[in-house]
Amino acid sequence: MTSPTSPQPVDVLIEARWVVPVEPHGVVLEHHAVAIQADRIVGILPIADARSAYAPRERVELAEHVLIPGLINAHTHNPMTLMRGLADDLPLMVWLQQHIWPVEAKVIGPEFVRDGVELAIAEMLRGGTTCANENYFFPDAIGATYRKHGFRAVIALPVIQFPTAWARTQDEYFERAGETHDLFRNDPLISTAFGPHAPYTVSDESFERIRVLADQLDIPVHLHLHETAHEVDEERKKSGLRPFQRLQKLGLINDRLIAVHMTQLTDGEIAACAEAGVSVVHCPESNLKLASGFCPAEKLRKAGVNVALGTDGTASNNDLDMFGEMRTAALLAKAVAEDAAAFDAGFALRTATIQAARALGLEAEIGSIETGKQADLAAVRLSDLETQPLFHVVSQLVYATGRHQVTDVWIAGKRKLAARELVDMDREGILSRTHAWRERIAALDPA
Amino acid sequence: MTSPTSPQPVDVLIEARWVVPVEPHGVVLEHHAVAIQADRIVGILPIADARSAYAPRERVELAEHVLIPGLINAHTHNPMTLMRGLADDLPLMVWLQQHIWPVEAKVIGPEFVRDGVELAIAEMLRGGTTCANENYFFPDAIGATYRKHGFRAVIALPVIQFPTAWARTQDEYFERAGETHDLFRNDPLISTAFGPHAPYTVSDESFERIRVLADQLDIPVHLHLHETAHEVDEERKKSGLRPFQRLQKLGLINDRLIAVHMTQLTDGEIAACAEAGVSVVHCPESNLKLASGFCPAEKLRKAGVNVALGTDGTASNNDLDMFGEMRTAALLAKAVAEDAAAFDAGFALRTATIQAARALGLEAEIGSIETGKQADLAAVRLSDLETQPLFHVVSQLVYATGRHQVTDVWIAGKRKLAARELVDMDREGILSRTHAWRERIAALDPA
Repeated sequence: MTSPTSPQPVDVLIEARWVVPVEPHGVVLEHHAVAIQADRIVGILPIADARSAYAPRERVELAEHVLIPGLINAHTHNPMTLMRGLADDLPLMVWLQQHIWPVEAKVIGPEFVRDGVELAIAEMLRGGTTCANENYFFPDAIGATYRKHGFRAVIALPVIQFPTAWARTQDEYFERAGETHDLFRNDPLISTAFGPHAPYTVSDESFERIRVLADQLDIPVHLHLHETAHEVDEERKKSGLRPFQRLQKLGLINDRLIAVHMTQLTDGEIAACAEAGVSVVHCPESNLKLASGFCPAEKLRKAGVNVALGTDGTASNNDLDMFGEMRTAALLAKAVAEDAAAFDAGFALRTATIQAARALGLEAEIGSIETGKQADLAAVRLSDLETQPLFHVVSQLVYATGRHQVTDVWIAGKRKLAARELVDMDREGILSRTHAWRERIAALDPA
Repeated sequence: MTSPTSPQPVDVLIEARWVVPVEPHGVVLEHHAVAIQADRIVGILPIADARSAYAPRERVELAEHVLIPGLINAHTHNPMTLMRGLADDLPLMVWLQQHIWPVEAKVIGPEFVRDGVELAIAEMLRGGTTCANENYFFPDAIGATYRKHGFRAVIALPVIQFPTAWARTQDEYFERAGETHDLFRNDPLISTAFGPHAPYTVSDESFERIRVLADQLDIPVHLHLHETAHEVDEERKKSGLRPFQRLQKLGLINDRLIAVHMTQLTDGEIAACAEAGVSVVHCPESNLKLASGFCPAEKLRKAGVNVALGTDGTASNNDLDMFGEMRTAALLAKAVAEDAAAFDAGFALRTATIQAARALGLEAEIGSIETGKQADLAAVRLSDLETQPLFHVVSQLVYATGRHQVTDVWIAGKRKLAARELVDMDREGILSRTHAWRERIAALDPA
């Protein structure tokens, strides 16, 4: 007997105890399956229905797991993963001037960024992260590394007011930005953003060029902004304006802007972010560790600003753990807002998924489990003692789950982590290159 | 050929890549071994020397691990582990009055505390914790559960100004306290402390009885104090005093006092704590999650106050992860003190080990790896990608290590966790009892 309609062939059918699609908000699907064809999600339906609707080439059963959208790290400097824990517990300027910068000056180059990004990709995959908003020098080598490993990334094109190993003059930064952008034009996984470092290291003229070029290329502008009170004070001394005001004058406060940190904000600036469609990337652990200040994350949420979440580089975190970052963000926002109901778990999950996708201009492709979107997925085992008893799935994900409970990860439909093993990365090679860098860096660090 | 002195027989020799003894402070021993005879540490020496000095019954090789003192959770309500994640993201009073208290009233009793503590012990062992400062009703059943599982604990003897399932009148609380104390007199693992709930729920008269009895029994007094600004304001309205001042008048500000939370402190109170030898238990994640306020942890450190660390109950955390708590404490203290050098990793580790031991009056027995002390130890694997490269062991432990990297745990010389498996606990039984409680509690919760 043949069924009236024959089952549709698909590449993968993932059958999960729970699916949290993020969109629509607040939904937890039980005993649902997600069907994948090539790089896309083609169906989300009850397991029983999926079994008759699809003829999958591969079936993955996740009886104790929740399937969530792959997490998106909206601000990181992943080459610096090779400097994890090099110099902690130091005043900011001692850390930068006596440790990070001197070492960086001697190691920076395509090999350093390649090896650092490889280590970071392995760590991110093992923690359920499937996309990184990257910000570092040698974006060509960075992008090539992400592409090689099938990891989704937005690569910042750096602009900074002094010469570096990447470029010497402002013109050269812009030339290299254009060349790098061209390298990844139409790449299915890699896209670019402008990466002016910060208001205090980028001239008005360069900001103006960036505004025009970002419009022409239709890419975001990824900028450290109002990281500390000191930054705001110094700009006021120089120009009489707060950095945010200066950017308003320059026309950069718009929906292309990914404003990272934002620990210092007036109510007027928060309203201006909401109105202009600015995305704010909150990096709570970095802000704490460097004593930068407290981002008013709940005020931003209430004002309707698109808040995304980032780890910042491992030199100031010291991990790329988006589960930990969601938890810290939710906990910290409550204390800062003096309201235990602030920045709830559901919102925290959005900051690491759909809102991060929106910040990167990728909300049509990633950030939620919806038919037609890219199959960027993470499966999280909730049967561990540490996540029992289980009353509310999203609450458990944010407040009790460790990233080591991530078991399986897909990017664009390709399995990248299977039962916690890296599918197509050379773990031993990564570790051995990391050890070699460790020796070299330790010898350079004056500590 | 016989050696001039024949090797000393010992029960266990643990050979580790690193040993962080905590005392002396700042020391990281490389390629060292710890020898255990019965329940005690009998030697700490280079592996090569240990191999000729000892004839161990069991040798444990930890080539990629650091051996640290077992962590001490200085404030927790472990029966509540069965309510993990029951009701999150709610205002404090809604959480307590509409969820926690109504459910608790219906489930509380010896079975509930036994099953909750068993789940908690399993979680703590898997996270490197070997001692808990427990605070909940039915301390007799709690203590019996810890004793049964060979887990070290200090059990609070509750005193509160209203009737509960544990006792009805003040006299009954004190009677039951005395009986419970007698149950564990001279127990090698279990000791007791008085547990007056908080200034706002305990009368002057009861505090006075506690002061006298604590001296007679020579036990600590474990008290929630200055958890919120509201608590301080209410007391001032009632008695004209801050709770701390009231306790000073009552003679309780002394070196028996384990003062938990302390988010509201004047400089004078901090100085008084240092002078009187009060121990302060900092619970950063609970304080954040309940929006209780920010404990001035770095000021306490600078004043020389003995600061210990606790998770609080899982209903307000939502885990018993002392690695996470050390990290949160170190990060948060920097931001609160506006100093990236505040509350360094070495100090964070002390708050979870030797300083917690001192708070509990157990510093002669636990809290560091020293010859003659109890063999309460945790081994942590640092070879994972997430803790590479490795520049500084203690920094890595606090800022990058996840509790799932704990592989082996000993309490009083007995192995309790081996290669991440619980040695002598029935994991499936614990999970199945947890599931049964989950069904019962979910049916009771009006949410």
